Amino acid sequence: MYQDKIAITTGDPDGIGAEVTIKALNRLDLPLEKVVIISNSKILDYYGHLNTPYEIIQIPYDADICPGEVKAECGEFSFLSLKKACEIRPAAIVTSPVAKNALNLAGHLFSGQTEVLEYFLAHDGQKAEMLFAAADFRVLLLTRHCALKDVSLTQEAVIRKITNLREFFIHKLDIPNPKFALCGFNPHAGESGILGKEELDILVPAVNELRKNGVNITLPLPADTLFVNAANAYHSHKKLPFDCYIANYHDQGLIPIKTTAGSKTVNMTIGLDIIRTSPGHGTAFDIAGKNIADEEGMISAIKAVL
Amino acid sequence: MYQDKIAITTGDPDGIGAEVTIKALNRLDLPLEKVVIISNSKILDYYGHLNTPYEIIQIPYDADICPGEVKAECGEFSFLSLKKACEIRPAAIVTSPVAKNALNLAGHLFSGQTEVLEYFLAHDGQKAEMLFAAADFRVLLLTRHCALKDVSLTQEAVIRKITNLREFFIHKLDIPNPKFALCGFNPHAGESGILGKEELDILVPAVNELRKNGVNITLPLPADTLFVNAANAYHSHKKLPFDCYIANYHDQGLIPIKTTAGSKTVNMTIGLDIIRTSPGHGTAFDIAGKNIADEEGMISAIKAVL
Repeated sequence: MYQDKIAITTGDPDGIGAEVTIKALNRLDLPLEKVVIISNSKILDYYGHLNTPYEIIQIPYDADICPGEVKAECGEFSFLSLKKACEIRPAAIVTSPVAKNALNLAGHLFSGQTEVLEYFLAHDGQKAEMLFAAADFRVLLLTRHCALKDVSLTQEAVIRKITNLREFFIHKLDIPNPKFALCGFNPHAGESGILGKEELDILVPAVNELRKNGVNITLPLPADTLFVNAANAYHSHKKLPFDCYIANYHDQGLIPIKTTAGSKTVNMTIGLDIIRTSPGHGTAFDIAGKNIADEEGMISAIKAVL
Repeated sequence: MYQDKIAITTGDPDGIGAEVTIKALNRLDLPLEKVVIISNSKILDYYGHLNTPYEIIQIPYDADICPGEVKAECGEFSFLSLKKACEIRPAAIVTSPVAKNALNLAGHLFSGQTEVLEYFLAHDGQKAEMLFAAADFRVLLLTRHCALKDVSLTQEAVIRKITNLREFFIHKLDIPNPKFALCGFNPHAGESGILGKEELDILVPAVNELRKNGVNITLPLPADTLFVNAANAYHSHKKLPFDCYIANYHDQGLIPIKTTAGSKTVNMTIGLDIIRTSPGHGTAFDIAGKNIADEEGMISAIKAVL
């Protein structure tokens, strides 16, 4: 019933999710049969008015709407919305931002939506991977949301993730021989081991193994210089030197793509049966309820799965 | 004798330092009395020809020049060049890149040139700080070159560095009430402690103390979104929202400014009696000796102290 529709969640009721969803849908003006919204009419009515009467799957929400607050009820709503989006097996899922601390207050100890989607969708050892994209500037994260001190890699995981990434490029993006650039874990890519050993102990052996399997990938390169050419190409609308940049941790990958592409940066979850996208921004509690949120990110997220 | 001159070192003899120094000086065409070069005529002659006969202070170098190699002799030369630059007490020092592993091979266990300059110039408890600048986009690093796993902050060090930064802005840049933005240490600035505790344990208390002392500074903000406005303002030649962005570690600060400003990014060492600048790039061993290195970074570094 939903296999041709895009399911859109509105995320945390006290954040900007519903507002940007409404604004984006009104601007995109998609056909009625293309969209199903997973939310609650009380929340949608609070934040705006939809020009097209898309189907709305109602998720219970009895609390007040208090823009900018962090509440267990909001975490519960965010969680149930994602669960429902997975259950209806749509063509793709577009998620508005949630607050991880609200999820946690509601007893759902996930560090982000990607982990919730993986929990409900993964089978046969599938793993969700985070890919960020703005046009053909793409960044894969080797680790997900965790404290900087907890970032850790294994050779096996690096090989698995990059092998899966190649499959995604070949089979979903129709790029038969994708070129990947790998960021060093440490500053200056460890400078031969003086500034850290992860390159020599983990990344270089992983690259050697991947190359044996036909993967086109660089040795670990200093991240701060690697992204300069990508940014220049993006700004001048030229083809980027690499099809995907592989970052070791959140800020290493998110800073360059957001600094370059801003709100056009889309968060994609790949590796599961259903592709999911979301805008690159968060709940933006500081401006929630003021009707000043920018829907550009949500528009990019929806366009990425059209 | 040198107090009105800019002292320029050519860095590692097997890197691109001498080449970009010669190209930059030929393009800038500075007066004869403004520049002193700390290098060796053999190295300078190998990499090019200076149009103006600037004074050259000779540093011994008996080894062969082998572009792209990492040699103890090069580390020794790099070290002695910096030492000499400090000894002559010039108006400012501009340094070409060195290879830290060559420095180490020569027995000089410094992790970078900043540490060498601090060793020779600091007195009365002075500390060198790394500021990166491209026009009025400026980034301070709270920690210097070290493995990612070794990055660690203390509240005391954060307060001291930002207090010194403010002094630098007031007294050297004539910005009487500088506005500082502080990056979170963890992704999403720790998201209330779920993604790391450094914000709650170290950064927020430091900000509270700094604000009591009149410092205009934000609470820790998610680094990936913080730099978006800075980049937009830079590209559209508008005033940036903050006079300086404060990053916790190397890649967090270097990635956004280099992604935005590329080779115009200048590395400044502040907090010592003599200001030092250098281009943002490294020795670029892969292109050394090919006469294809871009001198834009060296030009920016020299211009920053004119």
